[in-house]
Amino acid sequence: MTDPRHRVVIVGGGFGGLAAAKALAGADVDILLIDRRNHHLFQPLLYQVATATLSPSEIAWPIRHLLRRQKNVRVVMATVVGVDTSARQVLLEDGSRAPYDSLVLATGAQHAYFGNDQWEDFAPGLKTIEDATAIRRKLLLALEAAERETDPARRRALLTFAIIGAGPTGVEMAGAIFELGRASIRGQFNTLSPDDLRVVLIEGGDRVLLNFDPELSDYTLQALRKAGIEVELGQMVSEIDADGVSFGEKRIDTKTIIWAAGVAASPVAAWLGIEGDKAGRVAVGPDLSVPGMADIFVIGDVASITRDNGKPVPGVAPAAKQAGEHVAAVIRRRASGDATPLTFRYRHAGDLATIGRSSAVIDFGRIKLKGWLAWWIWGFAHIYFLVETRTRIFITLSWLWIYLTGQRSARLITHGMAPEKKPLREVDEAER
Amino acid sequence: MTDPRHRVVIVGGGFGGLAAAKALAGADVDILLIDRRNHHLFQPLLYQVATATLSPSEIAWPIRHLLRRQKNVRVVMATVVGVDTSARQVLLEDGSRAPYDSLVLATGAQHAYFGNDQWEDFAPGLKTIEDATAIRRKLLLALEAAERETDPARRRALLTFAIIGAGPTGVEMAGAIFELGRASIRGQFNTLSPDDLRVVLIEGGDRVLLNFDPELSDYTLQALRKAGIEVELGQMVSEIDADGVSFGEKRIDTKTIIWAAGVAASPVAAWLGIEGDKAGRVAVGPDLSVPGMADIFVIGDVASITRDNGKPVPGVAPAAKQAGEHVAAVIRRRASGDATPLTFRYRHAGDLATIGRSSAVIDFGRIKLKGWLAWWIWGFAHIYFLVETRTRIFITLSWLWIYLTGQRSARLITHGMAPEKKPLREVDEAER
Repeated sequence: MTDPRHRVVIVGGGFGGLAAAKALAGADVDILLIDRRNHHLFQPLLYQVATATLSPSEIAWPIRHLLRRQKNVRVVMATVVGVDTSARQVLLEDGSRAPYDSLVLATGAQHAYFGNDQWEDFAPGLKTIEDATAIRRKLLLALEAAERETDPARRRALLTFAIIGAGPTGVEMAGAIFELGRASIRGQFNTLSPDDLRVVLIEGGDRVLLNFDPELSDYTLQALRKAGIEVELGQMVSEIDADGVSFGEKRIDTKTIIWAAGVAASPVAAWLGIEGDKAGRVAVGPDLSVPGMADIFVIGDVASITRDNGKPVPGVAPAAKQAGEHVAAVIRRRASGDATPLTFRYRHAGDLATIGRSSAVIDFGRIKLKGWLAWWIWGFAHIYFLVETRTRIFITLSWLWIYLTGQRSARLITHGMAPEKKPLREVDEAER
Repeated sequence: MTDPRHRVVIVGGGFGGLAAAKALAGADVDILLIDRRNHHLFQPLLYQVATATLSPSEIAWPIRHLLRRQKNVRVVMATVVGVDTSARQVLLEDGSRAPYDSLVLATGAQHAYFGNDQWEDFAPGLKTIEDATAIRRKLLLALEAAERETDPARRRALLTFAIIGAGPTGVEMAGAIFELGRASIRGQFNTLSPDDLRVVLIEGGDRVLLNFDPELSDYTLQALRKAGIEVELGQMVSEIDADGVSFGEKRIDTKTIIWAAGVAASPVAAWLGIEGDKAGRVAVGPDLSVPGMADIFVIGDVASITRDNGKPVPGVAPAAKQAGEHVAAVIRRRASGDATPLTFRYRHAGDLATIGRSSAVIDFGRIKLKGWLAWWIWGFAHIYFLVETRTRIFITLSWLWIYLTGQRSARLITHGMAPEKKPLREVDEAER
């Protein structure tokens, strides 16, 4: 071989893939990072783009920009369609192949509708920038349409927002939609009142934030209800259509439904010709390689990793980052000829979720926080974990601005013209 | 009538319509402002969104937000399809009608291809936020595809960018694309060199910036060429297709063509059943009302107004604003029963255009500026004219950041996945 360097291919530029690439800086390897998109996304703040608090460019950065100072990495924007494990090549959509000595699969998850894919049209999920701007458009167009609607029932449906799933994303979306709706209506819509707004959070489990300590779940439930958000617990959704959502004996008429209930892993298991778990994830060994495929690592939301205590490693950003760093360490060893196994140990930093303005819950294990202090810590923690100085400055300013003035910067409806064709309220001659 | 207040309908929330609405604050009238979009757009900086310098939310604001403190205005997002001049009603797409006592039509212009509408697919223009993000996507995807391209000719075409029309928008786009391209390539694309970049500006007239003083045109031409931008003068484009642009005897192979050559007015003339000029504009009288229709005013890019000196009022933001304010003054008089005519007098503040980093030209009539001083004045003038404090702060910071670090914040490709299917460069086994 003319090129003796160890070739690492990383598929996916999310938290896991990016951490793996960065942790290999200076290593004697050639890295090829492949992603379908040109940007890394800070997903924990994606709900703030969907609710018009932040702009897309405040939470996403071109992957090549983030890795621009690292000499041993090459970034390409391309779509992977499979892996030839015997030839040790990644197959790309254009028919070309990328050979590897070590392969890191970090392609993440997408929303899943538990066999009801037709629900996606009515209840979009939140995984990409496009998802977020689409939800933002839906939320803002619903208010615009309500302003023009004369039929009381249709108007009520336009001002009702349902969120399915009360994990951190669902709770944060419910709180943020409620605040966006009330703040927008107040003063900006002549014919609407903030009290007309209805936000319903629907959860299949018996409490919100199932992964948190029950005491914090309870606090969050009270805080949501006190704010005015309806929470339906222990309710499995049976039907979603263009006009609403059904669960148990109930039916809620709404034009805006957000799906925050379930995710499924990318089709990595199929690429490798193995069986995934029921969420499509690949079970990996202690060093995060696939059993029987020592040169292939699977990390992040697409991996199923069991901790020493028998619990699964959660699908959160810090877990993906730690896994990426671990895999980088294993690959460094291998590239230098050392095949000693290295066991991944996940350190759980804690769980955080905001409920709304000045309210959040944090579960650090022994320490549990709730209320305004948790909210400030949540804010600082997120700014700390952002990947760029520029973004830190701009998001801090954006948040401060909204905190002090209540004005949200990003209430733009793009890729959408005037809302559905309904009579224009109050301007018809007959009504005057 | 139960409602004795004078009813004003304004169609369009651009510079003209917004200025008219604001200038009617406190007047004893009921204003209905109708726009197809929910936002007012600061078009002079739109090219900076297209070239990844600014984010959409930095130059666009919900119209209802801008008018939130004004009690006599109602904003609706709706599409106008005509005017019933005898019944004095505006016709909306949903079949409803908005009655008016005074009507202000300020619907602006869109790009026009001089009878070659098929060119639009290959040479998009720049009028809306969606246009800007689509052009941004095209520019960034061309670089991504070039990085992967192995065929030298195709690669050259991907790295060639043609701009048609050397008015302020064309000149500013050419300069900004050149800078975006060079800055992106440098350090971020392993297989590309900044010197591979080719930007060609094609103009039908015999100089760039035809509306400016010839001396400033000359300076701009030299500055563009010195920077490395090719400028073709006196060239009428004869063909545009997916692979390039032809003019005179020449053909340029390029995958990215931007149209900045011509605009046509919205179909206001057709709504009114009258004849527009060759660009579709409506000729208006001295008070900006349509001859024979004293209660209908046409302003901004959709109006053709002749100044006392015989020259036309240019299609720029300050002209639209002044016209909006003038019409508001006329309507105030009429609402109070005073029908004395009021003649519009346009005050031309000057023409400005940036050529690139630290270079601009300003034509204030007697005073003409060029170079870095003009560039700083250009920057301060635009910040001054922005409509919101928040935006002023954020754009100032964005510009300062780029000026100091060279890092552009908004290089996101959205609504686009991996670029066209071409072999992945340098990673094919056969090449290693």
